[in-house]
Amino acid sequence: MIIGKVIGNLWSTKKDDKLNGKRFLIIKKINKNNKVDGEICVAVDKIGAGIGENVLVTTGTNAKYTFENEIIPIDMAIIGIIDSIDITE
Amino acid sequence: MIIGKVIGNLWSTKKDDKLNGKRFLIIKKINKNNKVDGEICVAVDKIGAGIGENVLVTTGTNAKYTFENEIIPIDMAIIGIIDSIDITE
Amino acid sequence: MIIGKVIGNLWSTKKDDKLNGKRFLIIKKINKNNKVDGEICVAVDKIGAGIGENVLVTTGTNAKYTFENEIIPIDMAIIGIIDSIDITE
Amino acid sequence: MIIGKVIGNLWSTKKDDKLNGKRFLIIKKINKNNKVDGEICVAVDKIGAGIGENVLVTTGTNAKYTFENEIIPIDMAIIGIIDSIDITE
Amino acid sequence: MIIGKVIGNLWSTKKDDKLNGKRFLIIKKINKNNKVDGEICVAVDKIGAGIGENVLVTTGTNAKYTFENEIIPIDMAIIGIIDSIDITE
Repeated sequence: MIIGKVIGNLWSTKKDDKLNGKRFLIIKKINKNNKVDGEICVAVDKIGAGIGENVLVTTGTNAKYTFENEIIPIDMAIIGIIDSIDITE
Repeated sequence: MIIGKVIGNLWSTKKDDKLNGKRFLIIKKINKNNKVDGEICVAVDKIGAGIGENVLVTTGTNAKYTFENEIIPIDMAIIGIIDSIDITE
Repeated sequence: MIIGKVIGNLWSTKKDDKLNGKRFLIIKKINKNNKVDGEICVAVDKIGAGIGENVLVTTGTNAKYTFENEIIPIDMAIIGIIDSIDITE
Repeated sequence: MIIGKVIGNLWSTKKDDKLNGKRFLIIKKINKNNKVDGEICVAVDKIGAGIGENVLVTTGTNAKYTFENEIIPIDMAIIGIIDSIDITE
Repeated sequence: MIIGKVIGNLWSTKKDDKLNGKRFLIIKKINKNNKVDGEICVAVDKIGAGIGENVLVTTGTNAKYTFENEIIPIDMAIIGIIDSIDITE
């Protein structure tokens, strides 16, 4: 999974029907030095993450498992809001 | 998902039968600074996106879910036309 | 999907049985400026692409869908020979 | 699979229910020169890896197979603690 | 698929049960100029590749198809030993 920071919202009216009601958040990934300076991507959120929070994001077809039995075309979902990280290098 | 801008069309006559009638759009991804200066890729579109529009694109085998019960060899589909994005860094 | 140019052939005698008879082509991807100067990869071809042709390539587990009911370990397949591309940036 | 070193722990209270009880470890990948200086990512661990150990990590939807019949939204799992590597370049 | 050279072995005693008996090889990918100077990764081998050989490697969840009906958490498998490549740029 990747670590990122929620930096914004994305709105789309004209979209795949199966995504109605889904919440899209803009995520900025951390880079290799653990700074929030990586690529920008978009994840679906059902956890309730807010702007500025650090989140754990899964990528790929498994992202749909966050929505139980829904078969939806997404490749990125927030699976947790990060409380804390401790790194010992 | 990734964010990109539709910059062109791609035509292919000799292709996998299962892709007949599908619409292929050339997408230029945004880079890490949110500028349209990333890699070029090709996504299938059933939303009706036009040249110059910013779109939300899913990648991977889940892309086929945009076509319900079709089992098709695609790894990138447009899932939404972006109305707006607000970023708070 | 990615765009690439067919630049060669690859032969392998000692390979997974399920790949017997498959045709492997060497593909050079386009880079972000639409030049054929990206990474080199290998795709299975059932469309009949030739050296020098530009092709549309799907990546990931969906690549096997180009072979209907075969369950084969491939992650890249040519899904179309490109007639033309028009880009409006 | 990728090779990485376990450099930390990640805690998340508010997370997808299916991930309750799972252990998240921070992994730093090796770079192309085999030095631990690559990207940072997060893997689920059920092997019992500890800080400072080198581990073998699988990526993608197959990561869930480490948990038998659980359908969980993860894309990275530790599948082995590395005893040794010998490289002959 | 990617092209790489087998440069070593990896041993892991404490690993996912489903991987018992599997052979792990260290692979160095070719870079965009077709030189063996890319990233290092690990693939499962059932073809019988040896150190110094060039191999064709599939990536992703399809890698498990090299083991027929086994559901195993791997994302990279050697699917062929390369006899020869001819490139015409």
